[in-house]
Amino acid sequence: MDDKFPVLTYLDDRKARVDKTLREVLPGPEAPPALLNQAIQYSLFAGGKRLRPILALAAAEAVGADADPLLPLIAPLELIHTYSLIHDDLPAMDDDDLRRGIPTNHRVYGEDLAILAGDALQAMAFGLLADPHRAPTIPPEARLAAVYELAVASGGGGLVGGQVLDLRTPPPSEAVAPDGPERASALATLDGIHARKTGALIRAAVRIGALLGGATSAQLAALSRYGEGIGLAFQIADDLLDVDATPEEMGKATHKDDRRRKWAYPGVVGREASRAIARQWIDGALDAIEPFDERAEPLRGLARFILDRRS
Amino acid sequence: MDDKFPVLTYLDDRKARVDKTLREVLPGPEAPPALLNQAIQYSLFAGGKRLRPILALAAAEAVGADADPLLPLIAPLELIHTYSLIHDDLPAMDDDDLRRGIPTNHRVYGEDLAILAGDALQAMAFGLLADPHRAPTIPPEARLAAVYELAVASGGGGLVGGQVLDLRTPPPSEAVAPDGPERASALATLDGIHARKTGALIRAAVRIGALLGGATSAQLAALSRYGEGIGLAFQIADDLLDVDATPEEMGKATHKDDRRRKWAYPGVVGREASRAIARQWIDGALDAIEPFDERAEPLRGLARFILDRRS
Repeated sequence: MDDKFPVLTYLDDRKARVDKTLREVLPGPEAPPALLNQAIQYSLFAGGKRLRPILALAAAEAVGADADPLLPLIAPLELIHTYSLIHDDLPAMDDDDLRRGIPTNHRVYGEDLAILAGDALQAMAFGLLADPHRAPTIPPEARLAAVYELAVASGGGGLVGGQVLDLRTPPPSEAVAPDGPERASALATLDGIHARKTGALIRAAVRIGALLGGATSAQLAALSRYGEGIGLAFQIADDLLDVDATPEEMGKATHKDDRRRKWAYPGVVGREASRAIARQWIDGALDAIEPFDERAEPLRGLARFILDRRS
Repeated sequence: MDDKFPVLTYLDDRKARVDKTLREVLPGPEAPPALLNQAIQYSLFAGGKRLRPILALAAAEAVGADADPLLPLIAPLELIHTYSLIHDDLPAMDDDDLRRGIPTNHRVYGEDLAILAGDALQAMAFGLLADPHRAPTIPPEARLAAVYELAVASGGGGLVGGQVLDLRTPPPSEAVAPDGPERASALATLDGIHARKTGALIRAAVRIGALLGGATSAQLAALSRYGEGIGLAFQIADDLLDVDATPEEMGKATHKDDRRRKWAYPGVVGREASRAIARQWIDGALDAIEPFDERAEPLRGLARFILDRRS
């Protein structure tokens, strides 16, 4: 039965619900300042997979919650993710011209608007979680806990810290000998960057879904382990796609990690070992939620999807 | 008695408390990623007056609260203010080299770190408000309300929206005739920019202090009017200082508004009318809190200080 979970159908359905919610909660492109709201909508509706909100929904379902009423409190995860992509693409950072097959935000709206659109998206995410008009049945304690999770995952110990390390840690030396001390140290550095830059928000997504869904502390601990595992596996899969996929498949420049000598798994341990390590993380994630019943099937399907995705 | 409130002593004392709190709640300059935390500390401890947290403390006192336990929830106002200054100074925005008499953040740490330090400060502000280890006696409803106030004041309807309008609204025509329709329209545009760019966070500071201090809804309404009035007066006073003060007094370039043809009060209505309008806002603010007892003396003293400040 495990292998039969229709993960692509699930992803499509949940993406549609998240997109609908995003359109409902966001100021329209005509709302003042119109230019800001247009810049925000441009990047937010550029075709993201909505993986983080979908993981939160699946986590809420896994602990038995009705996930739909939580949507306005789960959509903020996508706002944070989108803001981080807009800022990462800036000339002062990764200097990317293309994202999801279209020009990056600053190429269309200018650097000033791109910075400000990211800033506004971050504020909006926290505002939605605290908005008294949204999801009024969710207790303030759970909402406040979600604010805390999201803030910690977004700050210096999470997203922002990961980007700082990624930009400013000297790249690993050209050839790292297998099993040598250099390899162990390079791997530790790499995991530290990944855990912050990608892992923290994915783990927070799972925890926020669990917290808003009313998880017990044992459930929350298990789901945290799950979130950590898939977060690290997701970034390894991303590094592998950067090596293996074409720009057409990815909708952005590929082979970038190599060109810029950035920190990435294949460069440090090779492709095969990268794939094996990602599989270990996914196996650990599946182990962690082994005690959950069939309501955790979406989480299981998503874990396998993360390993096998092609874009 | 009104004129005798020792506002400078009050400012010094409260600034010391806010600074102590900021040092306690922030990761030290050695905490990883060290470079990020150094960039944050550089701008945060560059000599800000801490006016927004001090207004919040004074509002909490005015409704009879013991303000000291609220300090960890009030310090976030300064984190948001500092982040907005770091981003406003960026080359893609106001392109300033000097702030508070020292080089701006990006001149010292680079544009990438300056953007990321601002991003991390914003996340940290919301994280502190929701941190279960801080100010545990404050009810979650009040904390969540503070998150909402801060988010709304920081986003497209507040700080960020004001900066977008300031950067992208075509400047007023050279000569605006007094009492003409152009002057009224220019004034409306100007007030719209000011209300967002400066007014929103000052108003939010007063409201957050009131909410955390347990204000009644009547008190909150009165304090909102007070906050709105002093916020608009503060920005007019700032515009006047840009014209009248020397760079040495201000610690940054002056006469900038004029040079860049930015939106500012003296250019639209002249200095004398600017001063008169600021005084009207302050009088309105003082009227709003007229029913409050002597515990509102700090708020009264601060309102007068805003009009008379020289830097």
